[in-house]
Amino acid sequence: MRIVTYGAACSLDGFIAGSDGSIDWLHFSKDVQDVMSAYWSSIDTMLMGRKTWEVATAQGGGGGGSMGGITTYVFSRTLQSVGHGAQLVRENAGEFVRQLKEQPGKGICVMGGGELAQSLIAAGVVDEIGLNVHPILLGSGVPFFRDPGRRVQLELTESRVLHGGCVLMSYRVAAPKPKARKGRRAVASTAA
Amino acid sequence: MRIVTYGAACSLDGFIAGSDGSIDWLHFSKDVQDVMSAYWSSIDTMLMGRKTWEVATAQGGGGGGSMGGITTYVFSRTLQSVGHGAQLVRENAGEFVRQLKEQPGKGICVMGGGELAQSLIAAGVVDEIGLNVHPILLGSGVPFFRDPGRRVQLELTESRVLHGGCVLMSYRVAAPKPKARKGRRAVASTAA
Repeated sequence: MRIVTYGAACSLDGFIAGSDGSIDWLHFSKDVQDVMSAYWSSIDTMLMGRKTWEVATAQGGGGGGSMGGITTYVFSRTLQSVGHGAQLVRENAGEFVRQLKEQPGKGICVMGGGELAQSLIAAGVVDEIGLNVHPILLGSGVPFFRDPGRRVQLELTESRVLHGGCVLMSYRVAAPKPKARKGRRAVASTAA
Repeated sequence: MRIVTYGAACSLDGFIAGSDGSIDWLHFSKDVQDVMSAYWSSIDTMLMGRKTWEVATAQGGGGGGSMGGITTYVFSRTLQSVGHGAQLVRENAGEFVRQLKEQPGKGICVMGGGELAQSLIAAGVVDEIGLNVHPILLGSGVPFFRDPGRRVQLELTESRVLHGGCVLMSYRVAAPKPKARKGRRAVASTAA
């Protein structure tokens, strides 16, 4: 099964950009370059919400055409078409990604400002979360996390200090607990 | 000068308690015990806002009387008195703490849910920030950070993994940059 990751650089107070969209506080280093280059070689698919897509295309980036070998899916119910070699998805994001994970391929990257990630985390299809926590408080801005509507248990898989006092933290997302069915008792593995 | 610290255990998405006040997700361990015991021996003063004070006294904790050797200051403009050996401060919190730091004594701890900390960080009197980041997303609740109204630069002083996949992160708060005065140019240290 393909792995879906959601990750970004963020401030200690959890913003991936200032309230004016500013990212001038981001610290680039050889460490970051190494992490990103290993990561990019592990994926072949990017998922974006409409807002991230609009920022990406405005900046001249975007879809598969410009990023060799990467398939880009843009999730939106309002857009009529996307261009730049990307594919528009208008159906339920969680269900779409659940099916995408079953198909052969490399890793899948969730981009952007948290709204798509929120729905995908809520749907239980995100496998890994990664943060590069920068030593700054922005106070306000675009949050990395939004409320998925339930608690999500994580498992720390890596934590290390990068150049410039940044801390790389990686987590595996625990599978949501299955809901107990009415009229049926959960069977404990140690049932007598 | 005495050191003012603001610290807490929090979820990866930055909450120190769930929206119902729940802290059942906190992971206690020998590691946490060691960190806390070293920290408590370094301070002799606690600062709380009204809400934290009310929670603390409802739980039977609170002021100097019950915590040997600790002086507790409660900041509130609405309370008429506090008891439990604590002292009520009705004046400007930032200015009060600035003066407190000049007096002889041990470290000063800012407790609670971020409102007092926000005003003290904004006033530039908090020297250190510490988090014990737990591997969980709560989605909503009591935030550790609130908007201090400006960017705050930090310096990472420690990052290490504690038992249970928790990550202890400690930061020194950089002094706010002095505002340039009208009609005067900043003198660069390398001025020709």
